[in-house]
Amino acid sequence: MKKFTQADVALLEKIILSRRDVRGNRFIAKEVAKADVDKILFAGINAPSVGFSQPWEFVVVKDKQLRTKVKESFLVENEKARKQFKGAELDAYTKLKLEGITESSLNIAVFYKPSYSPVLGQTTMKEAGVYSVVCAIQNMWLMARSLEIGLGWVSIIDPEKVKEILNAPNDRQLIGYLCLGYVDEFYENPELERLKWEKRKSIDQVVMYNGYPK
Amino acid sequence: MKKFTQADVALLEKIILSRRDVRGNRFIAKEVAKADVDKILFAGINAPSVGFSQPWEFVVVKDKQLRTKVKESFLVENEKARKQFKGAELDAYTKLKLEGITESSLNIAVFYKPSYSPVLGQTTMKEAGVYSVVCAIQNMWLMARSLEIGLGWVSIIDPEKVKEILNAPNDRQLIGYLCLGYVDEFYENPELERLKWEKRKSIDQVVMYNGYPK
Repeated sequence: MKKFTQADVALLEKIILSRRDVRGNRFIAKEVAKADVDKILFAGINAPSVGFSQPWEFVVVKDKQLRTKVKESFLVENEKARKQFKGAELDAYTKLKLEGITESSLNIAVFYKPSYSPVLGQTTMKEAGVYSVVCAIQNMWLMARSLEIGLGWVSIIDPEKVKEILNAPNDRQLIGYLCLGYVDEFYENPELERLKWEKRKSIDQVVMYNGYPK
Repeated sequence: MKKFTQADVALLEKIILSRRDVRGNRFIAKEVAKADVDKILFAGINAPSVGFSQPWEFVVVKDKQLRTKVKESFLVENEKARKQFKGAELDAYTKLKLEGITESSLNIAVFYKPSYSPVLGQTTMKEAGVYSVVCAIQNMWLMARSLEIGLGWVSIIDPEKVKEILNAPNDRQLIGYLCLGYVDEFYENPELERLKWEKRKSIDQVVMYNGYPK
């Protein structure tokens, strides 16, 4: 007894292909309703997790003062980041808008909460706990897209600074800092592909059969 | 102009809620067609990636000898893992079927390939590259589910052994080892919830607003 049809498969593929990383140049001033935030969080907590440990915590940040502090961390880290690029890349980098911390409707900081007793499946590869949290973020990203809500993942911030700003316990690990909001437009292609920053890889370039070539 | 309807949102949610971690006790002897494997891989390569770096590599493993070797690594690691549990938990753990390496139709080993030049967005949080690969896996998991194909993520294996078996270059990092195949049944709830190994957390338990409590 099948649960999903070919049309369902096509729809999922369409959502996956339409998902974009959205930055402050595309967010519009329209608030995301709590019901939709809850729907996105619900997609997150229904992600797979190693040993069903559900090791995630989500901090929804609407407060503008807190967001301004996070933005300050971005500015510091981005200035350091910029200097790692040279020539034409440096020029291109400098022009890019890379976050939407204050332009978005809200932010969600996603943390990993470690367990102090053994977790089934996490005894050999400890990192499986963190990976569960990333799976939650990807579920949230797809759910947001289906709701026509843009999401941008900001990784150019100091995780320790964000923990301090949000009063997170010492043992928590910041996995992702997400900006969510309605947009004026979802690009057809990833922004860094449009700007020719990186080329898209084909399946043939990244798939092998029965091992790497000898 | 909206691209997705309320029915589309509901369908995505249904796929997310129906996704299961599938082990060898549920896989059936029916081969997954290459077109479906390609569809699952296509969902993977359309995941978000930091700086559009697409740092993933997928090794599709059908060869039985290779899979038997991976299974041997599981057996070694699972024996070590088992000993971390005690009493009733140890008994319960011992009875669990935790992988479907040889019972599934095929395996996919998913690797992270590091970059040797700076990657946009990965300059502060280096781990963002690995997280991109995890996003690819979650896309694959959902696509597999919509195709009625079960997927199980095996994390009780030695990543270095798997690299050796698949002839992976030294610098690659094994992120996930996946088993895929048709199933006799997708459980309504996660197996570890059914067996009362762990309780499901509610949204209220894991969501906070504007920071952790002071």
